[in-house]
Amino acid sequence: MPLQFTLEKALKDEHGVSRARAATLVLPGKEGLGPHVVKTPMFMPVGTQGTVKAVATKELEAMGARIVLGNTYHLYLRPGHARVERLGELHKFMNWKGPLLTDSGGFQVFSLAGLNKIDDEGVTFQSHIDGSYHRFTPELSMEIQRGLGSDIVMAFDQCPPFPATEAQVESAMNRTRQWAERGLKVELKPHQNRFGIFQGGLYPRLRERSAREITELPFDGFAIGGLSIGETPDMMQKMAHFSAPLLPEDKPRYLMGVGRPEDLVEGVRAGIDLFDCVMPTRNARNGQLFTSEGKVNIKNARYQDDNAPLDPRCDCETCTQYSRAYLRHLYVCGEALSARLNSIHNLTYYIRIMTEMRQAILENRFDDWRETFYTLRNAKKPE
Amino acid sequence: MPLQFTLEKALKDEHGVSRARAATLVLPGKEGLGPHVVKTPMFMPVGTQGTVKAVATKELEAMGARIVLGNTYHLYLRPGHARVERLGELHKFMNWKGPLLTDSGGFQVFSLAGLNKIDDEGVTFQSHIDGSYHRFTPELSMEIQRGLGSDIVMAFDQCPPFPATEAQVESAMNRTRQWAERGLKVELKPHQNRFGIFQGGLYPRLRERSAREITELPFDGFAIGGLSIGETPDMMQKMAHFSAPLLPEDKPRYLMGVGRPEDLVEGVRAGIDLFDCVMPTRNARNGQLFTSEGKVNIKNARYQDDNAPLDPRCDCETCTQYSRAYLRHLYVCGEALSARLNSIHNLTYYIRIMTEMRQAILENRFDDWRETFYTLRNAKKPE
Repeated sequence: MPLQFTLEKALKDEHGVSRARAATLVLPGKEGLGPHVVKTPMFMPVGTQGTVKAVATKELEAMGARIVLGNTYHLYLRPGHARVERLGELHKFMNWKGPLLTDSGGFQVFSLAGLNKIDDEGVTFQSHIDGSYHRFTPELSMEIQRGLGSDIVMAFDQCPPFPATEAQVESAMNRTRQWAERGLKVELKPHQNRFGIFQGGLYPRLRERSAREITELPFDGFAIGGLSIGETPDMMQKMAHFSAPLLPEDKPRYLMGVGRPEDLVEGVRAGIDLFDCVMPTRNARNGQLFTSEGKVNIKNARYQDDNAPLDPRCDCETCTQYSRAYLRHLYVCGEALSARLNSIHNLTYYIRIMTEMRQAILENRFDDWRETFYTLRNAKKPE
Repeated sequence: MPLQFTLEKALKDEHGVSRARAATLVLPGKEGLGPHVVKTPMFMPVGTQGTVKAVATKELEAMGARIVLGNTYHLYLRPGHARVERLGELHKFMNWKGPLLTDSGGFQVFSLAGLNKIDDEGVTFQSHIDGSYHRFTPELSMEIQRGLGSDIVMAFDQCPPFPATEAQVESAMNRTRQWAERGLKVELKPHQNRFGIFQGGLYPRLRERSAREITELPFDGFAIGGLSIGETPDMMQKMAHFSAPLLPEDKPRYLMGVGRPEDLVEGVRAGIDLFDCVMPTRNARNGQLFTSEGKVNIKNARYQDDNAPLDPRCDCETCTQYSRAYLRHLYVCGEALSARLNSIHNLTYYIRIMTEMRQAILENRFDDWRETFYTLRNAKKPE
């Protein structure tokens, strides 16, 4: 059953190009769980190993998270996709009733695994856990994601590193197209939808060609891959801005692995619907918190006597029930509650800015919202 | 304002000695928080550094925890009792609205700190965090606990190690009495109540004398100290059984630092009202789970395909929402959710057996309940 994607509003930029948009994504869902409604733009918390680190699924629900990401590479290695399938698939395993998107495993194979060797057929790599050898192909990636039972299945792509020569990027891009076609031949479960990924690095010419090649294929949505991998935020934002209009207007657009709050704002402005990033949870564990007034490094001694809430504009559990002084104490003591309260806040913050942007788009005041966003943070907004 | 302690039922053993009992403890509480009602027997989760490790206070409330323990030694070192007091005292700092008991810091000074030197005046010790030198006296212990604002303040005692000679234990016991008297001269806040601690190691003669000396002093409740410090469970249970009747019937009795589920059962049988122990939370973090059918070591490979709940008789979040296979996966992956879900279950289990014992006492069927407890676990019950 295909997803339904209904644009509610699309703002045009000064050149008449359709940009920031609000839409409703309806995924059919597994029997007993679906259909799932996801209002976009939306941020997807990352549940790498079948859990969004330090956060329970009921907390994700409470903060308004409506779709969560799972990692094919990690779940393939532990506990194994066949096991997850036997245990009732990933939704049941991790106790998440909303929709799940699984990545293809490609990115982790290139970035996280030990030595990897790519050929036209697939990628051989060593597990980062025990050094054992494994091989991913576009077909196996589909089979793993089929076993996990996610609602959105990502195509297996080759993400070239940054920096890379034009020839390297072009080669990865060509392979990405071939792998996309091969993956499409693997049958999935009735409730599963597929997103294609296009590459092209920071080369506009290649981005254009890759987008054309991938959007010609029968995917239900499209992702911009190969960004947020080491280039500057400015380069990333510019390429996202260039890339978004290359994708069909009537299908969901997903900017993979992005990013900082300001990157989400600029991504939405460019016309992106979906985002994912480990930053809110990873930074939370390092004591770096995102607030309406900018970053707070909670380990700083200045907070040790600060009885104020972390973010006075936030209604999350962390901000309504605990002080900065307590959050600092937990962090300094290495207490488990630290990662949890910090993660809940950071994710709540990410989801709230998405919700606010959506509302602003619907009410035709996105530029004003964006202005306030940068003013409150005392930061310069990008051109 | 003194606490109120009302015996609801006290069962007599075969010699006519008053043993297992159900009571209601009412603590006046801080303004806006009290009065607090604690139905005993009850287990008190340990919130060492101002947090029960990996668990949020709303979860403690939901599982039926009605009184939580805070550690004077840890909170004195970090973040400092004066700071906690400035920030609104410990209840507010850690967001716990129920009553708090703070220990005296004595036990940690002897067991956890670096080199310590005891004299009649007090104890000089080195911080386990940075090696800095500090000195605790009975007076300072009271001042720290006054600053923290706990509802029950424990006397500063000297806990002799195990094993110790009779002379060593007697010396510690004498000092404990002197320190108890000195502590009583320090004024506390109006809502605070004081518990005395008696020592005497495994020497019945000394236990009798120490109990007599301490219970002559105007404390609001009494604790059995110096157990669960290395002696066998059998020795501990026997001494608890010997010690409980040495304490007044009309005041709460607290067995410090105990223990395993079966130790709680035997403690209640002996006539104890309150218990605390890090075991449910510490073991949870090591993957050792307590269930109605005995211990489960969740890291065991036998659970990797086990879709059953951890404990089919348990209604906690962990048992109703997750499988053993998932709990094993989280543990093996070192995920933060592992410690949390495991701790919630173990604490729920501890509190449930207390609640069940209380009900059984009230209904005059404690022996039957105890019989079933050991039968379900396939374990031999102590004489």
